[in-house]
Amino acid sequence: MEWITDSRILIVGLGLMGGSYAKALKRLGFHVTAIDTDPAAIDFALSHHLVDRGFTQAEPQVISESDAVIFALYPTVFRRWIGENQQYFHPGTMLTDVTGVKSCVVYDIQSMLRPGVEFIPAHPMAGRERSGVQASDDKIFRGANYIVTPTDKNTPEGIEWCKGLGRILGFEHIAVMSPEEHDQMIGFVSQLTHCIAVSLMTCTDNAHLAEYTGDSFRDLTRIARINDLMWSELFLMNKQELLRQMDIFLREFRTLRDLLETEDRDALREKMRLSTRRREQFDVEPR
Amino acid sequence: MEWITDSRILIVGLGLMGGSYAKALKRLGFHVTAIDTDPAAIDFALSHHLVDRGFTQAEPQVISESDAVIFALYPTVFRRWIGENQQYFHPGTMLTDVTGVKSCVVYDIQSMLRPGVEFIPAHPMAGRERSGVQASDDKIFRGANYIVTPTDKNTPEGIEWCKGLGRILGFEHIAVMSPEEHDQMIGFVSQLTHCIAVSLMTCTDNAHLAEYTGDSFRDLTRIARINDLMWSELFLMNKQELLRQMDIFLREFRTLRDLLETEDRDALREKMRLSTRRREQFDVEPR
Repeated sequence: MEWITDSRILIVGLGLMGGSYAKALKRLGFHVTAIDTDPAAIDFALSHHLVDRGFTQAEPQVISESDAVIFALYPTVFRRWIGENQQYFHPGTMLTDVTGVKSCVVYDIQSMLRPGVEFIPAHPMAGRERSGVQASDDKIFRGANYIVTPTDKNTPEGIEWCKGLGRILGFEHIAVMSPEEHDQMIGFVSQLTHCIAVSLMTCTDNAHLAEYTGDSFRDLTRIARINDLMWSELFLMNKQELLRQMDIFLREFRTLRDLLETEDRDALREKMRLSTRRREQFDVEPR
Repeated sequence: MEWITDSRILIVGLGLMGGSYAKALKRLGFHVTAIDTDPAAIDFALSHHLVDRGFTQAEPQVISESDAVIFALYPTVFRRWIGENQQYFHPGTMLTDVTGVKSCVVYDIQSMLRPGVEFIPAHPMAGRERSGVQASDDKIFRGANYIVTPTDKNTPEGIEWCKGLGRILGFEHIAVMSPEEHDQMIGFVSQLTHCIAVSLMTCTDNAHLAEYTGDSFRDLTRIARINDLMWSELFLMNKQELLRQMDIFLREFRTLRDLLETEDRDALREKMRLSTRRREQFDVEPR
């Protein structure tokens, strides 16, 4: 399937991501339908012209007439939805998603689908500090990463189709990696950093220090404002990998602590120089 | 002593902070002299009109004719300099500094001084990612915090004089606290955060992940580019307090890790909600 504007697109789940996908695709001229159990989300999307049609239930007729379906649900809801409704897809329907963890959902979903329906998993690495369809904004894709995480069940055509979606949405950097590589990467660059930010906010009652926090403390804790429902689920669904990363960080932090306790100035400085060299590369690296 | 422009000001140490103080005070019309052992720093300051006069040695004549002296040296160098030169100050000379740790230097310095010479310690919480007099910029004081950390050896007049310096330099928020309160605060909002950023960069060889790092990872590691000579000294000179803070953070991070391992979703979510509530306060708090 090509990304031609007479394709009928169904978006399941109208939160921030589902709404932002809808907004972008509608602007590009596609016919966009949405399903969300929350009538207020559907009303908002209709009145703001993010979608052409909206339903609060999984209507078999609507599902079967879709050419492409984009899932923007929490992982557990996503699995349940596929289990209950996959029989309504017509052969040739292309599916993708926005889920932030991969290994724990991708294989399950693919094994549930009838033959002829292909699910190509993707993770758009974009977001905002606010959630909900009301915060939808298709500008969040600009300059962001879009990761396609196929398995050996996917076809080259399916992978190209999924990359094409990233391109038309306006993502800057489109990459392909396995679900396992994705979960390792996201465990480090996103989940571990959120664990650190949360721990830094919760370890001490720091309210009286608010007026003395400079940019560095504010930078480190910006992501400590966190949607607890979504992030607890993302952490739990990437548990083994995130635990592994947390243990690596714990060991390293403890090493630094012990170097300070034993006053090993040379080794402390060597850690700082390594840190500086690595961080410098991040600033020169073209994104 | 009032901050009147016929005061003769001596700045000892022409790095980023010494240079930025010089630039601001010269612009305000003061007569500014600098001492730095590096001839290149003096040449730069003279040719860029940051100072009126510059010397590469601690000239007794220059020291004795100064009304106010500002020390912008590493803590160990600062102590040695006072030990060697404090006899040249004339009675009534006012001293202050920019040192980022307090308890470990303030009492030593005050106990070395002859009667009639008052040292009022201060910490301007401003800086840049670059160092050296060449990076001097008096705009770094705007919107920043300036902390005066007096002891019971200081006079009310001395404390007012020191706060007045913060005001004329353009700091937004001027506070007074004890050296111990300062070191506790700075251990948390600055040193602990630098330890976390460094550990995050050194715990894994992450060069191949550079292209996938979004804003959150970049925010958390911005301060991982670090002047190893200065920061190792600051860490070591605030060792007991920083160790205490590192241990509190370690315990909290390990608790979060264990909640993940035991899949205690409710407790994970409660941590995230606490983190969110505390971080929200930081954004509404007037600075």
